[in-house]
Amino acid sequence: MTSPHPPVAIAFYGGLGEIGRNMASIEVDGRLLIVDVGLIFPDAEHFGIDLILPDWGALAERAADIEAVVITHGHEDHMGALPFFLREFPSVPVYGTKLTVGLIEAKLEEHPEIDADLHEVEAGERRDVGPFDLEFVGVTHSIPDGLAVAVHTPHGTILHSGDFKLDQTPIDGHPTDVPHLAALGDDGVALVLADSTNAESPGFVPSEKTVGSTMHEVFEHATGRIVLTTFASHIHRVQQAIDAAVAAGRKICFVGRSMLRNMPIARELGYLSYADEDVVDLREVAGLAREQVAIICTGSQGEPFAALSLMAAGRHRQVTLERGDTVVMASSVIPGNESAIYRSINGLVRQGATVVHKGVAPIHVSGHAAADELKFFHNVLRADAFIPIHGEYRHLVAHRDIAMECGVPEDQALVCVDGDVVLLEDGRVRKGEGFQPGRVYVDGLGVGDVGNAVLRHREQLSADGICVAVVVIDTRARLLGDPAVTQKGVIYEPEQAGLLEKASTALATELDRVDHDGDQATIRRQAVQTLARFWRDEVGRRPVIHVQIVEA
Amino acid sequence: MTSPHPPVAIAFYGGLGEIGRNMASIEVDGRLLIVDVGLIFPDAEHFGIDLILPDWGALAERAADIEAVVITHGHEDHMGALPFFLREFPSVPVYGTKLTVGLIEAKLEEHPEIDADLHEVEAGERRDVGPFDLEFVGVTHSIPDGLAVAVHTPHGTILHSGDFKLDQTPIDGHPTDVPHLAALGDDGVALVLADSTNAESPGFVPSEKTVGSTMHEVFEHATGRIVLTTFASHIHRVQQAIDAAVAAGRKICFVGRSMLRNMPIARELGYLSYADEDVVDLREVAGLAREQVAIICTGSQGEPFAALSLMAAGRHRQVTLERGDTVVMASSVIPGNESAIYRSINGLVRQGATVVHKGVAPIHVSGHAAADELKFFHNVLRADAFIPIHGEYRHLVAHRDIAMECGVPEDQALVCVDGDVVLLEDGRVRKGEGFQPGRVYVDGLGVGDVGNAVLRHREQLSADGICVAVVVIDTRARLLGDPAVTQKGVIYEPEQAGLLEKASTALATELDRVDHDGDQATIRRQAVQTLARFWRDEVGRRPVIHVQIVEA
Repeated sequence: MTSPHPPVAIAFYGGLGEIGRNMASIEVDGRLLIVDVGLIFPDAEHFGIDLILPDWGALAERAADIEAVVITHGHEDHMGALPFFLREFPSVPVYGTKLTVGLIEAKLEEHPEIDADLHEVEAGERRDVGPFDLEFVGVTHSIPDGLAVAVHTPHGTILHSGDFKLDQTPIDGHPTDVPHLAALGDDGVALVLADSTNAESPGFVPSEKTVGSTMHEVFEHATGRIVLTTFASHIHRVQQAIDAAVAAGRKICFVGRSMLRNMPIARELGYLSYADEDVVDLREVAGLAREQVAIICTGSQGEPFAALSLMAAGRHRQVTLERGDTVVMASSVIPGNESAIYRSINGLVRQGATVVHKGVAPIHVSGHAAADELKFFHNVLRADAFIPIHGEYRHLVAHRDIAMECGVPEDQALVCVDGDVVLLEDGRVRKGEGFQPGRVYVDGLGVGDVGNAVLRHREQLSADGICVAVVVIDTRARLLGDPAVTQKGVIYEPEQAGLLEKASTALATELDRVDHDGDQATIRRQAVQTLARFWRDEVGRRPVIHVQIVEA
Repeated sequence: MTSPHPPVAIAFYGGLGEIGRNMASIEVDGRLLIVDVGLIFPDAEHFGIDLILPDWGALAERAADIEAVVITHGHEDHMGALPFFLREFPSVPVYGTKLTVGLIEAKLEEHPEIDADLHEVEAGERRDVGPFDLEFVGVTHSIPDGLAVAVHTPHGTILHSGDFKLDQTPIDGHPTDVPHLAALGDDGVALVLADSTNAESPGFVPSEKTVGSTMHEVFEHATGRIVLTTFASHIHRVQQAIDAAVAAGRKICFVGRSMLRNMPIARELGYLSYADEDVVDLREVAGLAREQVAIICTGSQGEPFAALSLMAAGRHRQVTLERGDTVVMASSVIPGNESAIYRSINGLVRQGATVVHKGVAPIHVSGHAAADELKFFHNVLRADAFIPIHGEYRHLVAHRDIAMECGVPEDQALVCVDGDVVLLEDGRVRKGEGFQPGRVYVDGLGVGDVGNAVLRHREQLSADGICVAVVVIDTRARLLGDPAVTQKGVIYEPEQAGLLEKASTALATELDRVDHDGDQATIRRQAVQTLARFWRDEVGRRPVIHVQIVEA
């Protein structure tokens, strides 16, 4: 039963040097379906970089072959790069559920030049998108209205899980559609790609409802002002905060740009429910007693200018905290944000607030299935092959091992990294020829112009600063006066200006001494060496040395 | 019963902007006892800084009043700044237990110019040090031979806990000396200063022995090579690793500078025990089968050049890993090191190793007492007053609350920060006049010359690089040719050199246009503004602009 169709090719783009968390493509008979177009977040090693995009350069020549984009859910790491993608591929239609499309529309309002072709789909629906026979499966995650996507191909059905967990009592009453997954499994699934984030965590993630119980308990006993922070996309958690606040007789006040943007959208689309009279504006808060209000705000990750961070620093113009107030951080600690988050907590405690965070109370649960949930998932689908996605390498390997425990043969459980291409043919997978994966840095107005070379320069500058020497020579390459030596970030000038004079003298002496034969390259090399040695000997530092030669 | 003695003054130095973790002083009748002289570790915000010292500038004028230094235990954050301290105060005697003194001696070998006056004391001992009547109490921690210090003063007894926990089955059979603490309590303790690190963690820290059980289990089932990492000062954990390795029929091999330095010291002083025939040199490892060896190495925090990090990157010259090997990370994740540690784990998994870390197995326990242990501690001492130390602000407040639960009155439970001075008089404490606390940065050869101003420059340089313009003018301040505009870290020159020419032209045009009246300051200001605007408009970045004017 050899198929006349070429193999289906699955490719992974960008990511964190590991695996297609942010963007994948599935190619069937020459047509491309893109699943997710997400952002990668810069960390401390990405000096000055604003955003990181997966490098979809491999698609540049194939614009006409791209049939559609499916966005599994409305998180930034799955849809945040869309404005950049649509600028390059403007006519590609984008599919997502109602909430996802609503959030994409809100995002695109900041990019009026983009005229996106957005299509709403529903969980449970089967739909042909060009030559693609797609089925959308509802999944539970830390944002409502998430999807897994099944692609029925001539070589078998592929299921891409999106981000999911198996919470059996989610807030909206729609647990991940296990019967739908089971039906797909009954018909036969050739290949599963699935979320590996929590594959190293044993057991099951507790239900989101447990967070609601904690909130009720905390709100019930709180006497002063309550400030609660969570992700502005975590609509269900905000719903629980609203319910706990109303039950405790408090008015709600949303604070922070993304809270104020997302909550009306979520309410209008039917994902969030509250009465008008239960919500007050920030200006009205001052007129209410401290125990009459619950502020729901941004800043759960210690972002420097977010509402909660300003409160922690005592610099929020409208909201101050005092002894007896309670701050609830109903959120995770995203790796890399630890210092900023603990700085916030310490600041809040210094203001006198009691801070309830996940380190001291069950006020957060993950949105990603833990190991035993993944076993359920694999046993329901009974797929022939598996590729773990969405995780660090250690998570992928842990998830591979789980899938094998559930019956996927070792040679059909492939740990992939970005740039890998997997071929599915007649129900079996193998690795194909890969491509060079990459990330594209967005820095200011530039997209892709800053690369590792520039970042290396910034790193050097960040460690020991820069020394600039201007060497003025005459037309016969003789030094005219002592070189001007200046610096930034090497020494503290008010106290050490003498060092610059000394450097200048040392440089002049050295340039007079050596026979550079009028060659500017020689002068430059000599100057760089002299100054590098000078700073090493004087202060033990290695600044960037920048020499400018002026012929006067 | 008013005492003729002036109040006893307790002062806190340095720390992480919070509290005397690293260094405190206790002044009795004009004489100063220093407790700990520790290092603060730089993080990503300390661009290029090598080490941070507590600022003991407040003591500069009082060198003659310093009676002694007591080091509670041999961790870097408690004794690492000693070489710098002793350079400034060379004649001050230093007291510590045998292991602590041994580790100080090893550290001072790198500073042969320092002739330290070191004194060994024993847990349980009472000793007069000048006018100070001291009692040393043995405590359990993540390094052996730790001390709490009681200071009997005319205004009452002060107990400084050092770092401690109440493990009832420590490896060396010496649990924290609760009977000694109880005896002090019976006689009356006026003030306790105690470790707050885990005050937010409920319950008790499991015994160090539980880590040994995990090791035995892992070692028993491991088939390939075993590589175990932990802190090179955690002698008891290394002992357990040795025992597990020998029980599993493996030879031990120490790898990494601090392992190779500390283990012989610990063995010689009687804190670590192993047979010569159980240890092999790294060169012998190649000759052994994979299941015959257990490597004990440095790198538990993902330090870039440590042994384990090199193995993770596949760049260790002697040790390679392969499928079937087991790496055991018997260590904590120190805040700020998360990314580096996870990078190591991912690298090790990519080499094929199974990685056992605290996220997946009980292979680490903390060295600091958790909340319920702290309650025991307070109830045994029954002190009249309390100052939480060693922790972030949130930990201090949590510990303050615990002490109050155990009976310390609210006005005698003082949350302090560095720079605070607390006065103890007739058994009661109050805050006195504080001083400006600070940290001293060590950068290369410089101690204290780099401050926040230089760090701000480095931060600016790190974000968007630097643009350097050299403007050559004649003696009448007329521009001679187009300015030379160069950059580092702003753009990628091979592809964007045209921007530099454009910047030069823009600058020349602007400088020709404006009437600067021959004033160099005006020319400079105009040039900076023009270039700042140029980069903002062209690439949306804000590099440091450095303008050098040359009169030719």
